[in-house]
Amino acid sequence: MQLRTYLPILDWGRRYNRQTLASDLVAAVIVTIMLIPQSLAYALLAGLPPEVGLYASVLPLVAYAVFGTSTSLAVGPVAVVSLMTAAAVGRVAAEGTVDYASAALLLALLSGAMLALMGLFRLGFVANFLSHPVISGFITASGIIIALSQLGGILGIPTHGHALPELVLSTLAGLGSINPWTLAVGAASLALLAWIRVDLKNWLGRFGVPTGAANVIVRAGPVLVVLLTMAASALFELGGKGVALVGEVPQGLPMLSLPSLGLDAIQALALPALIISVVGFVESISVAQTLAAKRRERIDPNQELIGLGAANIAAAVGGGYPVTGGFARSVVNFDAGAATPAAGAFTAAGIAGATLLLTPFLAILPKATLAATIVVAVLTLVDFSILKRTWTYSKADFAAVALTLGGTLLLGVEAGIALGVGASILVFLYRSSQPHAAVVGQVPGTEHYRNVKRHKVETVPGVLSIRIDESLYFANARYLEDLVYNHVAATPQVKDVVLMCSAVNAIDMSALESLEAILHRLTDLGVRLHLSEVKGPVMDRLERTDFLAHLTGGVHLSQHQAMQAIVGGRTRQAPEPEPETHVAAPLE
Amino acid sequence: MQLRTYLPILDWGRRYNRQTLASDLVAAVIVTIMLIPQSLAYALLAGLPPEVGLYASVLPLVAYAVFGTSTSLAVGPVAVVSLMTAAAVGRVAAEGTVDYASAALLLALLSGAMLALMGLFRLGFVANFLSHPVISGFITASGIIIALSQLGGILGIPTHGHALPELVLSTLAGLGSINPWTLAVGAASLALLAWIRVDLKNWLGRFGVPTGAANVIVRAGPVLVVLLTMAASALFELGGKGVALVGEVPQGLPMLSLPSLGLDAIQALALPALIISVVGFVESISVAQTLAAKRRERIDPNQELIGLGAANIAAAVGGGYPVTGGFARSVVNFDAGAATPAAGAFTAAGIAGATLLLTPFLAILPKATLAATIVVAVLTLVDFSILKRTWTYSKADFAAVALTLGGTLLLGVEAGIALGVGASILVFLYRSSQPHAAVVGQVPGTEHYRNVKRHKVETVPGVLSIRIDESLYFANARYLEDLVYNHVAATPQVKDVVLMCSAVNAIDMSALESLEAILHRLTDLGVRLHLSEVKGPVMDRLERTDFLAHLTGGVHLSQHQAMQAIVGGRTRQAPEPEPETHVAAPLE
Repeated sequence: MQLRTYLPILDWGRRYNRQTLASDLVAAVIVTIMLIPQSLAYALLAGLPPEVGLYASVLPLVAYAVFGTSTSLAVGPVAVVSLMTAAAVGRVAAEGTVDYASAALLLALLSGAMLALMGLFRLGFVANFLSHPVISGFITASGIIIALSQLGGILGIPTHGHALPELVLSTLAGLGSINPWTLAVGAASLALLAWIRVDLKNWLGRFGVPTGAANVIVRAGPVLVVLLTMAASALFELGGKGVALVGEVPQGLPMLSLPSLGLDAIQALALPALIISVVGFVESISVAQTLAAKRRERIDPNQELIGLGAANIAAAVGGGYPVTGGFARSVVNFDAGAATPAAGAFTAAGIAGATLLLTPFLAILPKATLAATIVVAVLTLVDFSILKRTWTYSKADFAAVALTLGGTLLLGVEAGIALGVGASILVFLYRSSQPHAAVVGQVPGTEHYRNVKRHKVETVPGVLSIRIDESLYFANARYLEDLVYNHVAATPQVKDVVLMCSAVNAIDMSALESLEAILHRLTDLGVRLHLSEVKGPVMDRLERTDFLAHLTGGVHLSQHQAMQAIVGGRTRQAPEPEPETHVAAPLE
Repeated sequence: MQLRTYLPILDWGRRYNRQTLASDLVAAVIVTIMLIPQSLAYALLAGLPPEVGLYASVLPLVAYAVFGTSTSLAVGPVAVVSLMTAAAVGRVAAEGTVDYASAALLLALLSGAMLALMGLFRLGFVANFLSHPVISGFITASGIIIALSQLGGILGIPTHGHALPELVLSTLAGLGSINPWTLAVGAASLALLAWIRVDLKNWLGRFGVPTGAANVIVRAGPVLVVLLTMAASALFELGGKGVALVGEVPQGLPMLSLPSLGLDAIQALALPALIISVVGFVESISVAQTLAAKRRERIDPNQELIGLGAANIAAAVGGGYPVTGGFARSVVNFDAGAATPAAGAFTAAGIAGATLLLTPFLAILPKATLAATIVVAVLTLVDFSILKRTWTYSKADFAAVALTLGGTLLLGVEAGIALGVGASILVFLYRSSQPHAAVVGQVPGTEHYRNVKRHKVETVPGVLSIRIDESLYFANARYLEDLVYNHVAATPQVKDVVLMCSAVNAIDMSALESLEAILHRLTDLGVRLHLSEVKGPVMDRLERTDFLAHLTGGVHLSQHQAMQAIVGGRTRQAPEPEPETHVAAPLE
């Protein structure tokens, strides 16, 4: 039972049959065709040799098939994580060195270990701190950076940097040395890929090709472009004309190995690994959940962490680099009918076969084609509509998007994420430190009490009812004190203050001390303090203190009962008016 | 008007008369007597020459008298800030060097500028993030560290370090070289000071000395001990017997100057200056507010920031080091009848006079006496009762106290504060990311709806009412989705879900997207979604989106009205039962 939780394959493996096998095989073929050029291209984006992308598409997929819970998620190299890998690894080693490749393996190992540990200790909630606006801003900015970083590859000029300023400057500096042959290959690939994505399906439709077949042809488009440019490269001997080619690639699959663990490198890569883990997980889980919901399946987020963790550890062992679930690829996998995680394992087999067969031919592939593949893929990530949506809904959310977007563009991926998350948390803390509060009165004819400024309500002279719309904790405890004193000072005839606690979900030690200070000072002024609508968990906690014993007023189940008790008590006391300095229960 | 806000002296200065002058003068004399030995001792604690303590008790007090709002707060060198100064300055310069003294001036300038800016920009709320438990743990740990750091002075051995491990080791290492003469002076001072504090007042009472006079004599106790040990030092020529004396002190007051501003030093001292500012402000404002409340006066926290900022800038200009409002000293000032901030200015005049007259005699004062003064003063800071109080009330608050206390003792003042504040914020975020929620039912015979697990309530089959006890934001948005799906999955006959939002004080963009996802999926299942008791500010925001247009159920003023509308609607539809797949308003 316990084992089956951690090894979902034991569950779906039992129900595996010929029909699911057929569905999985069809999906695997289509995803394999789509994944080959993407793997090569994203490895280049990560600053790694292209074959590393293929390696990262073999063992990780098998590991995810064993440990993952999503039937549709297609794991492998993805654009955003490749960019983050380049940014992180570029800080510990120079591109093209052995150290660079082993740092990428170490990054995958660290990220895999972190994901797996988060899954085992059920820490998936940390991903919640990446809010929707922050993720949206981050993905859009990453798409822009990636597209721009590939412009150099299309123009045949060297560019560097993982943020806008350095990228733009190095691109501008290289404009004088554009290689026309590279530009021709790059621009042609770009145009062809764009046409395939936008128009090919309609065009095929006009020739009577059925939709299913047309879809497969569109998915195979990038492979066709790769084959075409390889042919052109051979025909025109582009390598001799200054066009950067992929070059000799080691044939076969790499030996299994463990990355070398230098303590310095671990320290330098630990934080990037954490950020990559969380970003990769958030992206992956949202795709997986969206697709699962369409089939009324459920995803276990903590088991997904273990699945992605295993995939990244497998990437480290199998010569790859950090991987996660890809959005477009998973949708294709889903649409193609993948029925179980086995589809991923079949895809892995397909990629392994391709690696063995294709690597000899890759030497003549122009890098510009791969750059064009990336540009067409990532432009779908760029979406500015979140700016408009958040601007209308909430300026604080807008600020989080804008800060993440701007920070990522100008300072890089890690600084951008950190700014966004930091700003979201600060805004939340600031808001809850200055809570909304309202003086309330009775909605005539009901037992309901609402804000006197928003509703036509009735109040009783001498009774001040304040509803506080926030949990009381250290950051707003002093604010609460000021609020009550200011209201009481403004209405000197007040004899009873009721704090309506319907929105108070917790009272921490600091807030308790503030409530004690309020009680103390109100008692000095001859004013009674009441509480109403105190929630169960809050009441449990207050009962462990002597605050309730000193409370001069009462604790009432509802605001209405509080008002009845206060006004009723008055009526009974009417013949003998309460003296100004009367204190119902002295505090000290 | 604007000017009077920033210069409170213009306000109280107008109402100044002979009576307030007399009160202020009496208070100033008593505080001056108390402040002289404290100033010398705390400067030594900060690693500075003793006269710096006197300088820090002149101009800062005048500046606070002009800009401060508290009639009772006595500003000057205090124990905790002196320890924090030693820890911060010790990292940029070696004790006893010119650099050390000018780094202390720079620290005061930075801290003063930060306080003044926080005041001008009304940023006093940042102090709220130092919770009561964190401050309590910090003060207790500081008291222990300070007392232990003075043990070396009393035993006549050199010790170093600003945290327990280094202090304990260096004290143990020195135990072999205890100077018996120093120990004799230190132990005698300690015993005498303790006796003065604990017993002298009763003893004087037995001899018929009136309470008022006895109080003044007790306050003057440390000065008497200083005079006695100076006499002993001269008589027994203690300087020649290895007893550390204060030594030659420059006579007169220092020239006004500005600290030199090295960029490296500013960078190194900026964070410590911020922590010192916030800790000093929190300590100061709580003393000032407690004393003000006793006289029904009000303190303006933002103007207090300006007052303390001015005091620290004055300390930097006048050869001092960081200052703040002292607790014991302010209580003495209050009890002695200080009527306006002018009492502080008179104290400054007293200290200035003492500096001119006393400095020639200070050379023969044993440092052990000053160490004993500090020990007796700081032991009152040590208070472990907060551990017990928080343990009973809330384990999270206990963890914050324990972490701050342990962190400060073991790692030092800055790490301790950072750990405490970080832990408090993380606990708050974690709690709000897993909010309390309750299925609610009607309390029979009322319009109230409470938790079905805590109250005897009535529910209607087919209607699920969930009250969420937290604002909805990015960190709990996904939790909310899971919560609703799990409840709906567990009760398949549900046709209506009501989210009772009485405790929802805000819904951010991430939570809005989660609500849209919930609505979408419930609509797919043929379940209607209603909201009840939505607060005004939340409703305003929702009205800017198309969420309400797609909402399949309604938004109801109260939970009771929601139930009436749902059950009423059913009754009317009774003859023609609603089909399973009916959707009141399709989402797409």
